[in-house]
Amino acid sequence: MKKIVLGFSGGLDTSYCVKYLGEDKGYEVHSIIVNTGGFSEEELKQIEAHAYNLGVKTHTTVNAVKSYYDRIIKYLIYGNVLKNNTYPLSVSAERLSQAVHIAEHVQKLKADAVAHGSTGAGNDQVRFDMIFHIMIPGVEIITPIRDLKLSREAEIEYLKGKGVNMNFAKAMYSINKGLWGTSVGGKETLSSKGMLPEEAWPTQVTQTGSQEVKLSFVKGELKAVDGKSFDHPTEAIQYLQTIAGPYGVGRDIHVGDTIIGIKGRVGFEAAAPMVILKAHHALEKHVLTKWQLNWKDQLAQFYGNWLHEGQIMDPVMRDIEAYLENAQQTVTGDVFIQLMPYRFQVIGIESPYDLMSSKFGKYGEMNTGFTGDDVRGFSKIFGNQTSIWTAVKEENKK
Amino acid sequence: MKKIVLGFSGGLDTSYCVKYLGEDKGYEVHSIIVNTGGFSEEELKQIEAHAYNLGVKTHTTVNAVKSYYDRIIKYLIYGNVLKNNTYPLSVSAERLSQAVHIAEHVQKLKADAVAHGSTGAGNDQVRFDMIFHIMIPGVEIITPIRDLKLSREAEIEYLKGKGVNMNFAKAMYSINKGLWGTSVGGKETLSSKGMLPEEAWPTQVTQTGSQEVKLSFVKGELKAVDGKSFDHPTEAIQYLQTIAGPYGVGRDIHVGDTIIGIKGRVGFEAAAPMVILKAHHALEKHVLTKWQLNWKDQLAQFYGNWLHEGQIMDPVMRDIEAYLENAQQTVTGDVFIQLMPYRFQVIGIESPYDLMSSKFGKYGEMNTGFTGDDVRGFSKIFGNQTSIWTAVKEENKK
Amino acid sequence: MKKIVLGFSGGLDTSYCVKYLGEDKGYEVHSIIVNTGGFSEEELKQIEAHAYNLGVKTHTTVNAVKSYYDRIIKYLIYGNVLKNNTYPLSVSAERLSQAVHIAEHVQKLKADAVAHGSTGAGNDQVRFDMIFHIMIPGVEIITPIRDLKLSREAEIEYLKGKGVNMNFAKAMYSINKGLWGTSVGGKETLSSKGMLPEEAWPTQVTQTGSQEVKLSFVKGELKAVDGKSFDHPTEAIQYLQTIAGPYGVGRDIHVGDTIIGIKGRVGFEAAAPMVILKAHHALEKHVLTKWQLNWKDQLAQFYGNWLHEGQIMDPVMRDIEAYLENAQQTVTGDVFIQLMPYRFQVIGIESPYDLMSSKFGKYGEMNTGFTGDDVRGFSKIFGNQTSIWTAVKEENKK
Amino acid sequence: MKKIVLGFSGGLDTSYCVKYLGEDKGYEVHSIIVNTGGFSEEELKQIEAHAYNLGVKTHTTVNAVKSYYDRIIKYLIYGNVLKNNTYPLSVSAERLSQAVHIAEHVQKLKADAVAHGSTGAGNDQVRFDMIFHIMIPGVEIITPIRDLKLSREAEIEYLKGKGVNMNFAKAMYSINKGLWGTSVGGKETLSSKGMLPEEAWPTQVTQTGSQEVKLSFVKGELKAVDGKSFDHPTEAIQYLQTIAGPYGVGRDIHVGDTIIGIKGRVGFEAAAPMVILKAHHALEKHVLTKWQLNWKDQLAQFYGNWLHEGQIMDPVMRDIEAYLENAQQTVTGDVFIQLMPYRFQVIGIESPYDLMSSKFGKYGEMNTGFTGDDVRGFSKIFGNQTSIWTAVKEENKK
Repeated sequence: MKKIVLGFSGGLDTSYCVKYLGEDKGYEVHSIIVNTGGFSEEELKQIEAHAYNLGVKTHTTVNAVKSYYDRIIKYLIYGNVLKNNTYPLSVSAERLSQAVHIAEHVQKLKADAVAHGSTGAGNDQVRFDMIFHIMIPGVEIITPIRDLKLSREAEIEYLKGKGVNMNFAKAMYSINKGLWGTSVGGKETLSSKGMLPEEAWPTQVTQTGSQEVKLSFVKGELKAVDGKSFDHPTEAIQYLQTIAGPYGVGRDIHVGDTIIGIKGRVGFEAAAPMVILKAHHALEKHVLTKWQLNWKDQLAQFYGNWLHEGQIMDPVMRDIEAYLENAQQTVTGDVFIQLMPYRFQVIGIESPYDLMSSKFGKYGEMNTGFTGDDVRGFSKIFGNQTSIWTAVKEENKK
Repeated sequence: MKKIVLGFSGGLDTSYCVKYLGEDKGYEVHSIIVNTGGFSEEELKQIEAHAYNLGVKTHTTVNAVKSYYDRIIKYLIYGNVLKNNTYPLSVSAERLSQAVHIAEHVQKLKADAVAHGSTGAGNDQVRFDMIFHIMIPGVEIITPIRDLKLSREAEIEYLKGKGVNMNFAKAMYSINKGLWGTSVGGKETLSSKGMLPEEAWPTQVTQTGSQEVKLSFVKGELKAVDGKSFDHPTEAIQYLQTIAGPYGVGRDIHVGDTIIGIKGRVGFEAAAPMVILKAHHALEKHVLTKWQLNWKDQLAQFYGNWLHEGQIMDPVMRDIEAYLENAQQTVTGDVFIQLMPYRFQVIGIESPYDLMSSKFGKYGEMNTGFTGDDVRGFSKIFGNQTSIWTAVKEENKK
Repeated sequence: MKKIVLGFSGGLDTSYCVKYLGEDKGYEVHSIIVNTGGFSEEELKQIEAHAYNLGVKTHTTVNAVKSYYDRIIKYLIYGNVLKNNTYPLSVSAERLSQAVHIAEHVQKLKADAVAHGSTGAGNDQVRFDMIFHIMIPGVEIITPIRDLKLSREAEIEYLKGKGVNMNFAKAMYSINKGLWGTSVGGKETLSSKGMLPEEAWPTQVTQTGSQEVKLSFVKGELKAVDGKSFDHPTEAIQYLQTIAGPYGVGRDIHVGDTIIGIKGRVGFEAAAPMVILKAHHALEKHVLTKWQLNWKDQLAQFYGNWLHEGQIMDPVMRDIEAYLENAQQTVTGDVFIQLMPYRFQVIGIESPYDLMSSKFGKYGEMNTGFTGDDVRGFSKIFGNQTSIWTAVKEENKK
Repeated sequence: MKKIVLGFSGGLDTSYCVKYLGEDKGYEVHSIIVNTGGFSEEELKQIEAHAYNLGVKTHTTVNAVKSYYDRIIKYLIYGNVLKNNTYPLSVSAERLSQAVHIAEHVQKLKADAVAHGSTGAGNDQVRFDMIFHIMIPGVEIITPIRDLKLSREAEIEYLKGKGVNMNFAKAMYSINKGLWGTSVGGKETLSSKGMLPEEAWPTQVTQTGSQEVKLSFVKGELKAVDGKSFDHPTEAIQYLQTIAGPYGVGRDIHVGDTIIGIKGRVGFEAAAPMVILKAHHALEKHVLTKWQLNWKDQLAQFYGNWLHEGQIMDPVMRDIEAYLENAQQTVTGDVFIQLMPYRFQVIGIESPYDLMSSKFGKYGEMNTGFTGDDVRGFSKIFGNQTSIWTAVKEENKK
């Protein structure tokens, strides 16, 4: 009997896949769920029970939160990555982490095939396909949802016919939750205009006042919040999320380019991620040189886009990670953030590597390191080529 | 008698310059003020009267608002330029506009010298020096404030000794206002930590509710607000400012690299500019292709930095402007913004060039333009090189 | 009867396609050949006769040399485009020009389908497919060679069976000739090591001495050679080719990334193109500012890669063309080249826009425009940020 | 008595400096020469003797060849750096290496001042000034040649008056030799047109035939030539130079932007460097992915320019070095070069990391890894956004 590994979320589509692959296609189905921070222990247990009820041979739960951070999120923070200056790439990054763990499971089980439940109209199919082609070449990829193009109703009918009993109700909003944010899709995001209503946001706003939070970074990584240290940055992120989430910060709607060429629009809430990214960037603006900031930006923008397009395995990503890591050596210090309902602001930073040290000259005040005469000379030379260009141009007018 | 043109704001430093240049150095002083949107008619009249009181030979007021927009601001909007993803370059852009008009005045008067009142510790001196070296080479540049390094008290003493009667009180916050935003410096911005207090902001928050505003762009330029059309985009900007300003949006503190190598920190409020930039960017995300967005970003980031450093006359800036202009051909449509106290959000857009048209495939739904099989083939080829790279690497492990 | 337009070269593959489409598939076949500079009048006549012999309904010859230059080659010169610093993109550019003309022919004939003879293992299939999808969406694309994967022998058998009489001998080297160079593939280019033998090069070296040539550019376009003016730059290119070709310059082997992820290696000779590109670049180094050169390079490198990948219709290409065009305003002057067997060198340039004018300071000699003291100040400020960074670092060591 | 460290070459300018600083200014002069590969043991001894004759307190010879490679040249090879696609940055890199060693000598001697003999019209003054400001802030920088602007004749007069006896004859061509190439300046390079005559090149062409050379790289570094291994890459470079030099390859004239805004032109010969750079690049084209090649190029181009401008101490250079180093992991293999008089060509490569492996698909032949159908799907999706863009545009025409 041929073995197949199935990425399984417990929802309608992947429940359908278990039955279809196991009973119609005769595979021995091994389901796997990769938790990148969006599931509680209880939810994971329910999903496991549901898988076995559907008849899988084995079900595996992978706690991928730390590996997800270590392999991907860390670099998104180093690079202050926001796709199109908006979106922290929550879902994009998760899918890749999940695909890698599923492929590793296939290798471990020496499975003959692998299946994912993506449709034929989104980014995820490309991410799964590509990681599988790269990591487990030769293993057949089966995608029942994409291939059969069944309606929701047809899937329900099929499952009911197989005696499956589960919650078949469709949620008003499709939610995808993980360590690095929660995406929210609904009727408002299907067209080019429309904001999600207050009740659609998974985390409701319960804070009304204002609160200052101190984020402590060591070489670019969040190590403590309000003086409370954590063993792993993922814990600091999750702790910050409990503080910042109820303020409703980090909500927005992103419209961007899918891998397959169409434009897509999606709501998201990402309180801790957005606070961390802005705090980290503020610290960098104080401790990095002008060209360090500039090149980081360019590389990180590409890194984010290429990650979004599923290309995390391209070795160029390792090269960029080496760059970003090296650039974090002095990104150490505290950043002070003020949280308020629906918004936050960076109050300032404290760092031993702060280049805005008053010892070396204060903006707008006379400096000890150089004189007005130095600047006079600088200005002359700094504009010298354009002076020559302009003079040459004037001469050609004659 | 040698003629000198003096950039004049009516403040302590440039008042000192009039007396020093005219009476101590024997120049015939021609003062000039270039209004880039920060002065009212009444203020300009008062400044003119003050100039004549100080003894200038002539005083000239240049209304530069439209030329400022046409030469610089237009391209900052095309490029969605925010320095370090924060600052709309309000002051940087203004100084260059002013320097150009002053240089043109020198040419017109055939003056022997030109003076500006910048200190030796900031960006402005470089901007003035450079534009003057380039546009009016050979004309002597006199900078009394930079060269004499007088204290505020010494300047006051000197002016009092010359019988000058003016307001010598020092403001708590130094304010610089213009079409593209108002900068605010104070004791909080002199160190790396500290937010400006509510009362320091020139525009106080008087709106408490929520309001939707429609911005209409034609080829990247703001042509109408809430259906009200304007002859020139500067009028639309100023009208939007009266609506958005009282919501207190567009306030922040920027820390960045000065031209002279030190880090500087400055507060700013820029309600209309920030709303316009975010609205324009949102529209572009719907109407431009992925690589159009990408290259615009890279070029615009350089454009902003190079402008900030005073290099507006470098012909590379004309090349980039040609790029940005060409990229605006389809940036036409309406953007809907919701204003709330201290924040705003983009609600959506409507454009005949919207690439997120449901006719060509909806994200997450099955498309007519392509099939799941097409994507299956795409994924294989799109990841092909990394597949080969990975296989080669595996082989080398053996 | 359904109409099909077939891109036709007269070779084995496309001859097969005529018979297959016309007789086996029942299409009314309309063949078309697009000449981008590689065919003589006589060759074109022979190809036409051959097409009619095979039984096409109509055969069309498009002289695309000038449109090819105007739409593509002009910008490759403006951008000094050499893929991976080696290859002038001869074939890549040609295919796109051909695909566009074929698509236009489909529109004109209101054909139901379009066919090309590319195999399933190269770049050309992607270029044809993409241009057709974009320009004539909905028109069926038929690719018999890719789909049927017939051997050369099977094709010959088939054609002989249909009574076709043509030269069935396989050339030792596959040659593709056009205005912008000739590619040469053979057994040496199929592996990673091996140079083409002397006799494989289409243009044999017959010149033994040395010759100086003057290329005159006006706004980046080659307008005259050795003082001889031409109506259109394509004529200047072709004239230069007759001079430079017999020197055997511009030969090399390129290895690069195909669109489909594999690496490919191909020999090419491109005497006139390489001389023009180097001459144009030399001129630009004299007349453009540092950052003009820098940004041109970055944009042009992308332009070349994106063109290579068939993406000529992406509007970002129009934006880059606007940039490149604007940057050519002062690229006017004469460039002096010395031709020798197998190599050439740039001797120098003369241009009214030369920024290396002795009036404005000579390298290594004292200048009038600035003093040593100016440079002293410049050096201090230019290194100021790194001075501060170093001092901060030293302090942290304590 | 105040101590001064003087960068000393033994030429007229620095000989003048010894006398001027020691006798006119009363310094205790400590001369230092930093050998970056251009001096023989004998020359260094003569220079030392000359220094003591002139009256220095101590003279120090630093053999910097290996540190020069380890700190700078290694990265120029990793990045295939050619300024403006022409010049291997021979002199630029050397000066920085020399400045660093001089500054370290100042630190070691606890000197009060440092002197260099650069004029006020070139790049070198900026490089020395900047490194000194950064590494030894507060140490006075004395530049007699720049400040006194003496003519050659005046210097000779002065030295003769002090009883100095040395070769005062001026060479026809000024030569600067080092590990990474030799620059040649003369009357032909002072204007925009003119090639150096055959006799001006330091290495004369004595080889007439053709020779194949094998360069073996390990992780981007040249480890062996023709199978002969070396302890340090500098030895491999020097060995290759003895082979390639007599072929007269790697000669050219570079025109480029100086740090101070003017354009400068200089001849150079760099046989081993040019062969190594082209060989290394050829190898990379076989073993790196498309985007690895692309980003390396962009970063390396900046790296070269910023190095040229003296900014080697900016920490962004360390970040880029980390990138380049990481990208060399698979740049291992042999490159075959054919040397001929005045030219050379890359014949091919052999590498275990070659991505052009026939196992994974050969260009132009049918592949096992993917099918024509996969490419058909790829082409559709790859051009999908431009298809949509074009359709939207067509619709707006109606």
